[in-house]
Amino acid sequence: MPEIDTQAFLRDLHELRAIGRYRTGVHRPTYSPQDMESRRWLMQRLEECGLAPTIDGVGTVFGRHPGEGPHLLVGSHIESQNEAGWLDGALGVVAGIALARAGLPVDVCAFADEEGHFDVGFLGSRSAIGEVTEAEMDASRNRTDGTPLREAIAAAGLAGLPRMRLDSGRYRGFLEMHIEQGTVLEEAGLRLGIVTGIVAIWQWRIVIEGQQDHAGGTTMAERRDAGLAAVRLLAAIDEAFPKVCGERSTWTTGRIALDPGAPSIIPGRAEILFQFRDVSVPVLERMEATLRALIRESNRRERCKATLEAISCATPALCDPGLMGALSGAAETLCPGGWQTMPSGAGHDAQNVAKIMPAAMLFVPSIGGISHHWTEDTKEEDLALGVRVLGAAAERALA
Amino acid sequence: MPEIDTQAFLRDLHELRAIGRYRTGVHRPTYSPQDMESRRWLMQRLEECGLAPTIDGVGTVFGRHPGEGPHLLVGSHIESQNEAGWLDGALGVVAGIALARAGLPVDVCAFADEEGHFDVGFLGSRSAIGEVTEAEMDASRNRTDGTPLREAIAAAGLAGLPRMRLDSGRYRGFLEMHIEQGTVLEEAGLRLGIVTGIVAIWQWRIVIEGQQDHAGGTTMAERRDAGLAAVRLLAAIDEAFPKVCGERSTWTTGRIALDPGAPSIIPGRAEILFQFRDVSVPVLERMEATLRALIRESNRRERCKATLEAISCATPALCDPGLMGALSGAAETLCPGGWQTMPSGAGHDAQNVAKIMPAAMLFVPSIGGISHHWTEDTKEEDLALGVRVLGAAAERALA
Repeated sequence: MPEIDTQAFLRDLHELRAIGRYRTGVHRPTYSPQDMESRRWLMQRLEECGLAPTIDGVGTVFGRHPGEGPHLLVGSHIESQNEAGWLDGALGVVAGIALARAGLPVDVCAFADEEGHFDVGFLGSRSAIGEVTEAEMDASRNRTDGTPLREAIAAAGLAGLPRMRLDSGRYRGFLEMHIEQGTVLEEAGLRLGIVTGIVAIWQWRIVIEGQQDHAGGTTMAERRDAGLAAVRLLAAIDEAFPKVCGERSTWTTGRIALDPGAPSIIPGRAEILFQFRDVSVPVLERMEATLRALIRESNRRERCKATLEAISCATPALCDPGLMGALSGAAETLCPGGWQTMPSGAGHDAQNVAKIMPAAMLFVPSIGGISHHWTEDTKEEDLALGVRVLGAAAERALA
Repeated sequence: MPEIDTQAFLRDLHELRAIGRYRTGVHRPTYSPQDMESRRWLMQRLEECGLAPTIDGVGTVFGRHPGEGPHLLVGSHIESQNEAGWLDGALGVVAGIALARAGLPVDVCAFADEEGHFDVGFLGSRSAIGEVTEAEMDASRNRTDGTPLREAIAAAGLAGLPRMRLDSGRYRGFLEMHIEQGTVLEEAGLRLGIVTGIVAIWQWRIVIEGQQDHAGGTTMAERRDAGLAAVRLLAAIDEAFPKVCGERSTWTTGRIALDPGAPSIIPGRAEILFQFRDVSVPVLERMEATLRALIRESNRRERCKATLEAISCATPALCDPGLMGALSGAAETLCPGGWQTMPSGAGHDAQNVAKIMPAAMLFVPSIGGISHHWTEDTKEEDLALGVRVLGAAAERALA
C-alpha cells in the first residue's frame, strides 16, 4: 500500500485555504486574483512532487507525471463558489498532489470553472475532452457581472495559451475525491461513499399564461389566475412524484415568478423553474412522462395555458465498475464496514471525463451536509482516511 | 325628474379624454402636466355651471354650490393610472358637472391621487376627512420614481395652499358614479349596479423560513424546502377558502418570491403576498381564522416555519341604505329590471367619505370587465343612462 503523507496533505489543504480566505471558508471566483494565486500555488506544489506543471488557455492546471505508465488522472477544481467552503474542489486537487508525492504514477489536474461562474458550464473539463468550441467561448459571459469570458481570460494573463486536451489512451482512468455535500454518510454513521454515478439534471421551464386582472373587480369564477394554476400544478407534482421516482431521485422548484407580482393584481403569467435528478435514465423518463401528464391535466382543468420547455436534459454519468471495485476494496481494507455506495446528486468534472475514460469518485462526509457556504467542513480524520483510501485504490487500479 | 343634458355630459367626457390622451385611453398621473391641465379644465367647467371652484394643497378640486341647502356631494377623482382608461374616476367627476348643470344643489369634487401614485394612499379623500397628517405627507413618495410628495406638490404649483376639509353637516350625503371594473353586470345583461358596500382588503405577508441547500446533494427527506411549504400552504388555502368565503369574496396571491430563486438551489425562504376581500366583517374574520388555522397546520406538518404578518386590515365601507334606496328607485324607474345590487371589489374615495357622511355608489358596466388599461370602455348609452339615474337619485335624496 502506498505511503500517503497525510500531514503534508492536510498542510497543503490549509495553505490553499489561506488563499482568498473568507471567514472559515474561501472566496476564489474563477480568474479572480485569488483564484490565479491558487493556480500558481498549485503549479509549485506539482513541481515539488516531480510533475511537470502547465496552465492552459482556460486556466486548467495540469501536472504531468514524467515516468512510464500506466497512469491515472486525479483531480477536481480549485476555484470556489462566491464566499464558499474550503474543500469543494480543492480536496480532490490536493488529494492528487498527495498521491503524486507518494510516488504514484498520476497526472494531476484542476479543471477551470467547474463552479460555473461563466455560463459555458464545466469550462475546464468540457474543454479538456474537446466539447467547447471557440464560438461557445466567444459567447460566454460571467453569470454575476456579465464580463465576457475572453476578457476575463485576457485579464488573467491566459490569452493565447493553447487549450489542453486529455489523451484518454494515457490513462487507466480518472479518480475524483470530493466532499459529499449532503448528510447521507453523516446520518448513516459512515466515513466513505463510493459513487455509483453522477445524476443527470433535467431542467425545465414551465410557463403558465392567464389573464392579468384587478384583484377586487374580478370574481373568483371569472379569473384566469396564472399563479393559482401554478400552485395547483406544483401541488400535483408534489403528490405524484413520490410514486414514480427512484430511491435517490430529487426534484426542486427553484423559482416561481408571478407577473406582475403586485399585491392587488391577479397574476397574468407565472414562470416556474423545475428540475429533477437521477442516475437512471428510465427513472428520469418516468418523471418526465409524469410531468407531461400533469401539465396536460392542468390544461384540461384550468382556464390558463401551461407550456413546458426543456432547458437541459443531460445523460447520467455512470462510474466505472473496475475503479469502483478498487475504491471499495481499499475502503473495506482501511475502514471495514465504514463505507457505502451512493449516487452523486451534484454535478462534477468526473461526469465529463467519464465520456472519454473510466472514471470514479470517492466521497467523504460533509459536516451537517453544508456546502456552497463558508461554514462547509469535514473532520480532518475523514479527510486523511479519504486520501489514504484514494491512494490504495489507485495502487489497485494500476496493478 | 331633473333634466340631465346627456349630450353635454358626453362632450365633457370626450374633452377630458383629450387631455393626456394615450391611444384610446389617457395617461394623467397625479401632478403631471396633463393632470394639472385636467384640474384647470375641471375648474372652468365648474365655474360655467355656477359653482365656485377651488384647488387645495394636495390638488383636490372642489366646486361649491352657492345656493341654499340641503346639498349633496358628488364626485370621484380625475387623475389616471399610467397609460390607463378614460373613464376610471373621470366619469364620477363629469357626472357631478352634469348634475350641477341641471341645477341640482350639488358640490362637486375631484379628490387627488385616488390612484395611489403616492404611497400615502387615497391622499385627497383621506385629507378631506382629516386623516392625513403633515408628517405622513412629509414621508410620502411617488411609488414609481421615488419623488417626495412635497416636491411634486411644489412643482405642480400647489405649495402653501390650505388643504380642504369636508363639512359633513352641509350634506345629505355623497354620490360616486364609477365603472364596474368587472364583468358582473355585463354577464348578467344588466346596465346598472347599486353598490352595497366597498369591500375591505385584508392584506397579509406570509414568510416561510426553511434551509437553503444544494438541489443535488440534499435528499428529499433531508430538505427544509420553503418553496414547497409555500406551495402546500397555498394549495390548502385554495381548497379551504371556498368553504368559508362569502358569495362575492375574493382571495388573491399576488406574489410568491423564493429566495434565492436559482434553478439548482432549494429555496431557504419564501415570501407570499396574499389578500382577501369582502364587504362583511364576519366573513373576513372567518377567512382570517381559516388562514391562521392553515398556517398552524403547516407548522405542524412542515419542517419550515411559516409566520403571518397583517399588512392592512381595513373596515368595509357599507353604503347608506337611504341613498341606496334613492339610487335603486331611480334605476327601477329609468331602467326597470335592468339593475342589481352588488359590492364593489375595488377601493374608491367613497369608502373614506363614508366615514363622515352617508355615501353610495352607482356602477355602469365595463366592456369585457377591463380597467387600469387603455382599452377600458363603456357603451355611451350606459354612460348616459347612468348619469340620468344619478340625477334622479340625487333629486330623491334631496327631497
